[in-house]
Amino acid sequence: MIRVDMEQQVNLTSEQLAGFQEMWKRCATRILLSTSLAASGHPGGSLSSLHSLLVLYAVMRHRPDMPDWEDRDRLVMSIGHVSPAVYSVLVEHGYLSEEQFLTEFRRAGSSCAGHVEMAVPGVEWNTGNLGQGLSVGTGFAAAAQLAGKDCKTIVFMGDGEQQKGQIAEARRFASKYGQKNLLAIVDRNHLQIGGVTEDVMPVRVQEEYQAAGWNVVYVPDGNDFQLVYRGLRRAWYRDYLEPGRPTLVVMRTTMGKGISFMEDKAKYHGSTLPKDALAAALQEIGVDAGLFDVWKARRDGHVVVPSHRELHAPYPEIETGEPVLYGADVKADCRSAYGNALKDLAALNNLPGRPPKVVGVSCDLEGSVKMDGLRKVSPHAFIECGIQEHHAAVLAGALSRCGISTFFSTFGVFAVAEVYNQQRLNDLNQTNVKVVATHLGLDVGEDGPTHQSIDYLGLLNNLLGFSIFMPADANQTDHIIRYAARQPGNMFVGMGRSKFPTILNENGEPFYGKDYVFQPGKAELLRQGEHASILSYGSILFEVLKAEALLRKQGVRVDVLNMASIRPMDVNAVLNAARKGPVITVEDHLALTGLGAMVARILVQHNVSQRCLMLGVTRYGSSGAPIDLYREQGLHAEGIAEAVQNLIK
Amino acid sequence: MIRVDMEQQVNLTSEQLAGFQEMWKRCATRILLSTSLAASGHPGGSLSSLHSLLVLYAVMRHRPDMPDWEDRDRLVMSIGHVSPAVYSVLVEHGYLSEEQFLTEFRRAGSSCAGHVEMAVPGVEWNTGNLGQGLSVGTGFAAAAQLAGKDCKTIVFMGDGEQQKGQIAEARRFASKYGQKNLLAIVDRNHLQIGGVTEDVMPVRVQEEYQAAGWNVVYVPDGNDFQLVYRGLRRAWYRDYLEPGRPTLVVMRTTMGKGISFMEDKAKYHGSTLPKDALAAALQEIGVDAGLFDVWKARRDGHVVVPSHRELHAPYPEIETGEPVLYGADVKADCRSAYGNALKDLAALNNLPGRPPKVVGVSCDLEGSVKMDGLRKVSPHAFIECGIQEHHAAVLAGALSRCGISTFFSTFGVFAVAEVYNQQRLNDLNQTNVKVVATHLGLDVGEDGPTHQSIDYLGLLNNLLGFSIFMPADANQTDHIIRYAARQPGNMFVGMGRSKFPTILNENGEPFYGKDYVFQPGKAELLRQGEHASILSYGSILFEVLKAEALLRKQGVRVDVLNMASIRPMDVNAVLNAARKGPVITVEDHLALTGLGAMVARILVQHNVSQRCLMLGVTRYGSSGAPIDLYREQGLHAEGIAEAVQNLIK
Repeated sequence: MIRVDMEQQVNLTSEQLAGFQEMWKRCATRILLSTSLAASGHPGGSLSSLHSLLVLYAVMRHRPDMPDWEDRDRLVMSIGHVSPAVYSVLVEHGYLSEEQFLTEFRRAGSSCAGHVEMAVPGVEWNTGNLGQGLSVGTGFAAAAQLAGKDCKTIVFMGDGEQQKGQIAEARRFASKYGQKNLLAIVDRNHLQIGGVTEDVMPVRVQEEYQAAGWNVVYVPDGNDFQLVYRGLRRAWYRDYLEPGRPTLVVMRTTMGKGISFMEDKAKYHGSTLPKDALAAALQEIGVDAGLFDVWKARRDGHVVVPSHRELHAPYPEIETGEPVLYGADVKADCRSAYGNALKDLAALNNLPGRPPKVVGVSCDLEGSVKMDGLRKVSPHAFIECGIQEHHAAVLAGALSRCGISTFFSTFGVFAVAEVYNQQRLNDLNQTNVKVVATHLGLDVGEDGPTHQSIDYLGLLNNLLGFSIFMPADANQTDHIIRYAARQPGNMFVGMGRSKFPTILNENGEPFYGKDYVFQPGKAELLRQGEHASILSYGSILFEVLKAEALLRKQGVRVDVLNMASIRPMDVNAVLNAARKGPVITVEDHLALTGLGAMVARILVQHNVSQRCLMLGVTRYGSSGAPIDLYREQGLHAEGIAEAVQNLIK
Repeated sequence: MIRVDMEQQVNLTSEQLAGFQEMWKRCATRILLSTSLAASGHPGGSLSSLHSLLVLYAVMRHRPDMPDWEDRDRLVMSIGHVSPAVYSVLVEHGYLSEEQFLTEFRRAGSSCAGHVEMAVPGVEWNTGNLGQGLSVGTGFAAAAQLAGKDCKTIVFMGDGEQQKGQIAEARRFASKYGQKNLLAIVDRNHLQIGGVTEDVMPVRVQEEYQAAGWNVVYVPDGNDFQLVYRGLRRAWYRDYLEPGRPTLVVMRTTMGKGISFMEDKAKYHGSTLPKDALAAALQEIGVDAGLFDVWKARRDGHVVVPSHRELHAPYPEIETGEPVLYGADVKADCRSAYGNALKDLAALNNLPGRPPKVVGVSCDLEGSVKMDGLRKVSPHAFIECGIQEHHAAVLAGALSRCGISTFFSTFGVFAVAEVYNQQRLNDLNQTNVKVVATHLGLDVGEDGPTHQSIDYLGLLNNLLGFSIFMPADANQTDHIIRYAARQPGNMFVGMGRSKFPTILNENGEPFYGKDYVFQPGKAELLRQGEHASILSYGSILFEVLKAEALLRKQGVRVDVLNMASIRPMDVNAVLNAARKGPVITVEDHLALTGLGAMVARILVQHNVSQRCLMLGVTRYGSSGAPIDLYREQGLHAEGIAEAVQNLIK
């Protein structure tokens, strides 16, 4: 293990160079062994990036004895597939044992996964899908900026990866926010799976970063420790560079560096060496070829030990204040109730001179998603990403792992459909992001099918770590938002666009009034009846309540259940409803994949048989007033009432 | 209506200028009226882009009497929200009546939707979500290149939109493929919903396009007809520009141009004028303010007439050739069977000297998704997009509307999860894209959870126009791929990564042999028994068949149904199985959202009660050999057999 103090040293000493060379030899051996032992993995890129990683860990501020040390510099490995290089270097620094790495790499249940995961101490983010790492880094850097810390964030990327559009978004963000402590490294070996990067898809990497306002440092040989050190040092202190800008270091490297027959071969991006080729490779670097058999035997005899590392990120204590009460005569949109609650939360928790605890991330829709209140009371806690949802979703995820209660808001189609895979990676990273999506359903109205999010539950259902809440009115929204701010974990809170009257109880008082306490997994009985049960949620509950009134006039009494807590779901409420009588689900969502489908699954799982009807969206909406769109699909009060009558007769 | 021959004229004549001014007045009136009548829409951007649109329609090759004329130039309106400007100009050219526009704009069921849709003749693509239009344009341009046509593709974008990362991908693609007939226009009014573009998220538009190898033309006043004409003309003929490159024209415009109190106000991006302000605006341009009431009355009295425009794109006649037979003793992966079939299709349909009919779109995974065969026999029909999946998915969609049987292939997480919203827009555009995704499920193995697509059905189920097929072995893959090539429509064909033995019938012959004909909506009974039915599909069927053999030894006989046709589903097969006895679904997919959930829905809908068990993935996978990952979640043969025993006992 080598530490170099960059403030003191302009160059590495010859002793240090020799030390790095020794480390390189051990690490290269591990890279080759691990991938051959697993007969899978990525040795080529691991070898091309190894020099940079070794120097980085020698200069970064980090503590192997305390991997979660708050003041550490953070390294985000955007190319998660060079895990053999990362694990090898972490072994050098004592984060991980060589034994664990070589016996467990790419084995079911192990921490030493094919793409780096936080189960290994020292890894800051689970990566694998390319193009997201720079957004993660900007999130860490933003958290450091908000906390007034000078720690660095380093994002290590591949050059093929530079093709991903999300990187263009992230680098603009870093520029806009003057993230001078953000350092990006591109391992420029000019090869990707498909061959030479210039053949597959040319990218003028340096020009693109320069056009986005970054400093760029070019290291002509990224497999030369001295040059790597000097390049990093220049970037670190922004020598002869613009002081207020993020900096890119392009490391010109060679795929498979150090093994003559692997060098500059695209094949070794993802191909491992069979035993004989491995022997030749080990021989080249002066290591006993018999190591393979030794480790093979140890690996075969080893039973994988699952990680016990705590992966939950720190979460702040949040003051939730007093709920706002929207009266019986108020007509309000859930969006505004969200905005009011968020503003309250910001005022209560973002204290002068302290890092903010409640942060809002917006994508050019501040006014529509009602983040202007938060912005007013805590301008520094409002992060505007522009029309860059992919970046924003990941940035929000990263922020939310830095002790910040992070709200990410945009329209439903952008918060879920457009960035589904970014939310999936957030979920894998156990982030604490609060996705508050407005403009859900046909309730979007005139903006038409491209803007109507009718699939959000169908999508979110696949993200196993997300709680999903769909408040019914302004009062419930207020309660749920305060709850979401206080509780860690990924949460989705969804709402439509329109204004509705406050939901009242049978006495004409606000149902979600002063005494209401939001409980995940609990449905509320809004109306009571004996002929059937209607299960619904969100904007369309208003139509359901109108349908209930119509039915009542027709002598039909139904239970109306508000299923605002979609996940966890109130399974007992569903089962009880079905045991009692016919069940109708009504939703401003595809009937195929929404509440109706979930209810069906619960009934079948519990072998409860009942007449059921799943009302919902059955085709893409058109462009018109929400009520007309509901009517087009039989989801207006009269349509619902008629369907109920047909079911129970 | 004005036509200008750019070959003849360097400048517009004063007569033409006067004519444009007259058209502008009528169009501006329509923009203001339509948005005020609908009390919703985007007047500001419509006015800023109007001049460019008017000039474009005067110089483009197009035929109002034949909107689908093959040799037309194509205009993709990436900013679909300036629909009032587009419709206004289309009215000038006779594509649409003023009556229809003003009485139907933004009304349920109308063609004149809030964001432009192809239901209006002259519109080439349904847009609305920003950032996708340039990819559409590169697709049209690629189709023209393949067909050897010189028609132009023009993509009209906003400047806020330039923030979207997908645009960076699309412009690299256009550069790589030397799309000299591609023209992009950016309406640079420096405003977006959230305010000044430089405040929301600065983009150095010209520098970014230049860095990607584009020609750039700057028009200092995009609301001056003469300057717009000159700029377009220069771009059209690439005067003093690189001849082989795509060209960007930046039109410096003013939001709300022409109405003094609307000019340069971000508010008018999405706010319409109330009646009094409208009167003032109309007065400014010299139009009778009473028009509003006249049109209001006509609108109120009008019943929306749904469009009867044929929206299906042309689809080529495809020779499907003879199926390949994989014998009883063969162990093969579906991927290779796909590659072989695709190569066959390319050889049969892509004839020398003719535009190719079968095209493959890849994202740096040519070898893994087995497109190398197609590439070998038709190099020109192989389109490599690099690691730019968002762009590639949209490009594939656009190509597939140009008479090309288009195959888009990458790993499942990239083909579906990463680009879900792009596929959604493809679906809204009734494309004919064949999404063939490999590396589905835990079968991905060692690459770990970021690469394991366990939600593809959960996602695709929301895309109402997609057929979904999951072949069980190499033989069935071959049949399905040939079917997919021949049939129009969006289709998903999914497969895992591993090799499996050929599925055999009870006589030991290939089940999907010579006499097999693939039929969507038909399940196949692979094994027969009386105690229960197992419904399954894809890679894991191999484990199911092993489980069946285990159960048989234990005296339990089960039906095994291959549900390869997920959509349309064989509803009768599901109901019959449930009427017969217990049902077990087994899938290498989240049990929550996959086949099990669909089966549950069918049973509940038909009020059929039965003991059911839904086996599938219940948590994110780890990184290891597929069989170990199956074992971790009880999805190995022994686990399945045991679960069946528990269910039926």
